[in-house]
Amino acid sequence: MIVVMKVGSSQDEISRVANRIEDVGLKAHISEGTEHTVIGVLGQVFPELRDALVVLPGVDQVIPVSKPYKLASREFHPRDTIVKLSGVAIGGNEIVVMAGPCAVESEEQLLATAQAVKAAGATVLRGGAFKPRTSPYQFRGLGESGLKILAQAGKETQMPIITEVMSPDHVDLVAKYADILQIGARNMQNFILLDEVGKTKKPVLLKRGLSSSIQEWLLAAEYVLAQGNEQVILCERGIRTFETYTRNTMDVSAIPIIEKVSHLPIIADPSHATGKWYLVPPLALAAVAAGADGLLIEVHPNPDLALADGPQSLTFDNFRLLMSQLLPIAEARNRKLATPSARTES
Amino acid sequence: MIVVMKVGSSQDEISRVANRIEDVGLKAHISEGTEHTVIGVLGQVFPELRDALVVLPGVDQVIPVSKPYKLASREFHPRDTIVKLSGVAIGGNEIVVMAGPCAVESEEQLLATAQAVKAAGATVLRGGAFKPRTSPYQFRGLGESGLKILAQAGKETQMPIITEVMSPDHVDLVAKYADILQIGARNMQNFILLDEVGKTKKPVLLKRGLSSSIQEWLLAAEYVLAQGNEQVILCERGIRTFETYTRNTMDVSAIPIIEKVSHLPIIADPSHATGKWYLVPPLALAAVAAGADGLLIEVHPNPDLALADGPQSLTFDNFRLLMSQLLPIAEARNRKLATPSARTES
Amino acid sequence: MIVVMKVGSSQDEISRVANRIEDVGLKAHISEGTEHTVIGVLGQVFPELRDALVVLPGVDQVIPVSKPYKLASREFHPRDTIVKLSGVAIGGNEIVVMAGPCAVESEEQLLATAQAVKAAGATVLRGGAFKPRTSPYQFRGLGESGLKILAQAGKETQMPIITEVMSPDHVDLVAKYADILQIGARNMQNFILLDEVGKTKKPVLLKRGLSSSIQEWLLAAEYVLAQGNEQVILCERGIRTFETYTRNTMDVSAIPIIEKVSHLPIIADPSHATGKWYLVPPLALAAVAAGADGLLIEVHPNPDLALADGPQSLTFDNFRLLMSQLLPIAEARNRKLATPSARTES
Amino acid sequence: MIVVMKVGSSQDEISRVANRIEDVGLKAHISEGTEHTVIGVLGQVFPELRDALVVLPGVDQVIPVSKPYKLASREFHPRDTIVKLSGVAIGGNEIVVMAGPCAVESEEQLLATAQAVKAAGATVLRGGAFKPRTSPYQFRGLGESGLKILAQAGKETQMPIITEVMSPDHVDLVAKYADILQIGARNMQNFILLDEVGKTKKPVLLKRGLSSSIQEWLLAAEYVLAQGNEQVILCERGIRTFETYTRNTMDVSAIPIIEKVSHLPIIADPSHATGKWYLVPPLALAAVAAGADGLLIEVHPNPDLALADGPQSLTFDNFRLLMSQLLPIAEARNRKLATPSARTES
Repeated sequence: MIVVMKVGSSQDEISRVANRIEDVGLKAHISEGTEHTVIGVLGQVFPELRDALVVLPGVDQVIPVSKPYKLASREFHPRDTIVKLSGVAIGGNEIVVMAGPCAVESEEQLLATAQAVKAAGATVLRGGAFKPRTSPYQFRGLGESGLKILAQAGKETQMPIITEVMSPDHVDLVAKYADILQIGARNMQNFILLDEVGKTKKPVLLKRGLSSSIQEWLLAAEYVLAQGNEQVILCERGIRTFETYTRNTMDVSAIPIIEKVSHLPIIADPSHATGKWYLVPPLALAAVAAGADGLLIEVHPNPDLALADGPQSLTFDNFRLLMSQLLPIAEARNRKLATPSARTES
Repeated sequence: MIVVMKVGSSQDEISRVANRIEDVGLKAHISEGTEHTVIGVLGQVFPELRDALVVLPGVDQVIPVSKPYKLASREFHPRDTIVKLSGVAIGGNEIVVMAGPCAVESEEQLLATAQAVKAAGATVLRGGAFKPRTSPYQFRGLGESGLKILAQAGKETQMPIITEVMSPDHVDLVAKYADILQIGARNMQNFILLDEVGKTKKPVLLKRGLSSSIQEWLLAAEYVLAQGNEQVILCERGIRTFETYTRNTMDVSAIPIIEKVSHLPIIADPSHATGKWYLVPPLALAAVAAGADGLLIEVHPNPDLALADGPQSLTFDNFRLLMSQLLPIAEARNRKLATPSARTES
Repeated sequence: MIVVMKVGSSQDEISRVANRIEDVGLKAHISEGTEHTVIGVLGQVFPELRDALVVLPGVDQVIPVSKPYKLASREFHPRDTIVKLSGVAIGGNEIVVMAGPCAVESEEQLLATAQAVKAAGATVLRGGAFKPRTSPYQFRGLGESGLKILAQAGKETQMPIITEVMSPDHVDLVAKYADILQIGARNMQNFILLDEVGKTKKPVLLKRGLSSSIQEWLLAAEYVLAQGNEQVILCERGIRTFETYTRNTMDVSAIPIIEKVSHLPIIADPSHATGKWYLVPPLALAAVAAGADGLLIEVHPNPDLALADGPQSLTFDNFRLLMSQLLPIAEARNRKLATPSARTES
Repeated sequence: MIVVMKVGSSQDEISRVANRIEDVGLKAHISEGTEHTVIGVLGQVFPELRDALVVLPGVDQVIPVSKPYKLASREFHPRDTIVKLSGVAIGGNEIVVMAGPCAVESEEQLLATAQAVKAAGATVLRGGAFKPRTSPYQFRGLGESGLKILAQAGKETQMPIITEVMSPDHVDLVAKYADILQIGARNMQNFILLDEVGKTKKPVLLKRGLSSSIQEWLLAAEYVLAQGNEQVILCERGIRTFETYTRNTMDVSAIPIIEKVSHLPIIADPSHATGKWYLVPPLALAAVAAGADGLLIEVHPNPDLALADGPQSLTFDNFRLLMSQLLPIAEARNRKLATPSARTES
């Protein structure tokens, strides 16, 4: 941490800052610049210290030097984290495609979708049982019966399942059925929920908040990691900008940035990022070209009858087409597509 | 709802849209424009219909005409809602100032602050017992013992208290002590929490999310109202923009907009909006000049020792100065400052 | 400037950075932190050095300490700049209101407006002769004949006039007629235009760009100041955010920030910031409550027939009402409204 | 255009709107909804009409149905525009890579770069002679002597050249040397400059403004097209968002959107979008995977000595590596890389 004093700050002001630093057991290192005096803080800094120093008289700015996240940082954990599920590894050389409907609507809808996406090459089944909805008048999901349908379809098609958990008191329930617990964008800073999923030993997929910086996202991951759960997968799903043509703006650059600053796997959700089905394939290809470890894609047997997110869902045909385009892109990056496990029924 | 067909859409495509509308019991009204055919949807539209229509072939766009919120809308509820607490009414002619520290740290800190802000003219005491923090390594509040300290200080100074609730399973606990339940910006779309505070009969202060549109904010209020709790106060606390000088950008225009489109009271929190104590007074004055019904202000006996949000907290002296500047601004808008109730101890 | 080395950077990398600094005649001051080595750069730093250092191996970040603007900075020029026109001073104790139509449409329209706004208390007449328009199919202004109409109306009502200049080769022409040269938001970083208005000795009103940070805005002012023209007035007119209810989001906090970091006068344009006439009065009051030195307001005799910006223009009656509300707000801030000079016709 | 009346608007208000529409020679088509009366406007609408209607009493909103751009729209011009230069076609099946330094610094620097990028597969040479710089104290380019160096290097390596023009009165000068006139992001709405480059018959590369919507970008292209110049290439270079890790956020979704709504070629500039050299390759690959027709890449013989944009420039080695990764991505999308024309010197 570095304290920059104002031009013309007094000797008293400088001493007061130095004393405040040394009062908490750290060292202050004063150096005189051409315009500004600068005070370096040596030792293990705690975040509140910045707040305490910035308000002192004569202080112009306080600049943190260390990153506030540690467990999520590649600096302190250079090797890639690989999240392993039965038959699927996320964060290794293989690209993992998770696909399924936005909301679980019925056994028929889900099973048909599960079989179709598996046949096309998906290796994880997604589907929502608890749905966060902007309006209280929209369909909010089937709840536990949706979870049961999901688990059943996962079993029949031998695919691990991912589904969202929205509330700390649902964590145990959802963890009973799901292989991956999804934290939605609106809950990225629901810190109590992060604590709770951190206490389970289930893999957690953490979506980036609509207006969260990369640093805040990694700090949210840090909440989960700090509870001892190391199986965190990050998911870029678009940020809020001034552009209204797309629902959000997918920040493709977040993919190589996460790869650089963190050891956690990073996947992309072009369905929520764009909100329009015809933009999903080009953005899915872009994400993998940029280095994503996987994709989360909404697929529905009949998007124009979907109870949620119809406009951004791919039909089975369009999903198959996307998977066929994805393979050469993955190979161009020296990666493979994960292959679905064998079907049980024969 | 209006469906705009693409230039050159076929008769078949138009009929398919019309049939889809009539299938769900509504009427389709087709009119031919110079370039586009336009289909009006007559009847009580439900939100999912938009999704269902926009994906049909030949459709260019689907434009909602009605607002998605009803209970929060002034159109359907023209008269101002006034939230009444013991001795304080929010949303009427008087400006209500809520003040206190970001976090409850100790009995001494809170009581001293409560007495100081009351003496200066505040009528509601604020203080956090459960604190949402970006990093897991920061001080997260005293929990229930903080609530007890708050309640005690509120009683001693005869001020109603407001404090944040972060999790559905804390609602009962917090409601036991607090007069107003605060929903923080990061939880504005924590829909299960909104349901829960809606089920209490306590007033709810709903902060605007960092990247929430005004419409999404009113839909969040709609969640609370839809549970039968009509005592909702909205609070503008800054939105996330590209500007980094301030922590957030306080959207002062939200104040007269809310006044126009909703009947709910609207207050402003310049402390969180700006993140810098010296910007709090000018933004507080601006909010009241723009028509705010009240203010939420962070005050601390010794901001440079605060465990949270020191840089944006006013000292007692600065708070007194702000209150003295506020009075003529309120009068310029033909309003009064709410007056603190009499002290019990004499 | 401070160079932060990566955790574990080598002695060679550190030396290379130090050498690069000393190669250009500056001093490098190395200090070892707990995690990071930090190198201070002593001496008069030039902006390109940052770029040169940040790419060196082992460098984590380069942090500028000094502000990149000097002439616009209060640090180097503590006293307020007051821009003086005949009978009007901008940046002193008096609030200056500039009003008039978006576009000059005809002699009658402009003269009627000029007389009305003067009678209500405006002291500068605004009107556009060259109009930047998003679409090539919109009305782009009357050009020089518009300037003549403006000058004539200014003369008849004894008001200085302000009008926009859009192109370097129009500067001489516009400067012949105008008392203040306005640089529009879309041209805030039209650097050649800034050079040219800097070469005139006319006051320049510099609107903030739609997506410009406060620092970039001051650097744009620096372009004008660097040409020897010290008469720069800044104008906040809204920034682009995700919110679509208003055309832009007026950043009221920019007003006290500019007052703190710069000596230049700061005014606000609530008409362009909001895009809706009924939001103009509350935002105008907010701006003055926050410390603005003046306002720029669109007024039209008949807004629903205006050729440009009708929806955000005030009628004469609404402008009079605003001026009557403004006076007590100004007084609450211990300021006065500038008074119009005496009318010539008697 | 569709006018939505407020709930409970009067018959008089409805008639007034209808009359206003018919006064300007259009037809009004009134239809009664469940809550709102809606009035369709039939005939060729001009943009000002919206402004005129929205302010009438009883009007809730006015919704444009037609797109405001025509010449740039695929609806009115379904076939792809292909911009042809000597030996290079932009917008066809081949991916065109434009590369070179941010600023022309010297003959040696430019020629060395030109030879290296050509050898690696670039087909257009870029370089800046007039540089827009945020601060007046930064290097602003060599001006005409830079143009001469560019033209000479282009001739020697048989590559067409692209360079920025910043001011209307420089258009003739720059057009004398350049094969493609570049309009920078900060000048995207410099409408007089757009008019002037529209009057030349040179291809124009139009960068998206930092805070411009896709619609505004196409309207800026419309300015050029409306002057009779049909050779417009669009270039996505990042938009301004709250994220500060990257200089801007590259909006990859803009690529397939432009492909859908316009016939103009679309390329991407990952160097300016990200501001960091190590993010350039992944974003370049992403852009081509998403369907871009080409790339604009900054390359410098010695980035850490560059006078501008060093941190985002690729070395020759890194550029060669990128080109080798690009080929399989292009092939995965059934496209080829454009091949450089034969070298003259043998």
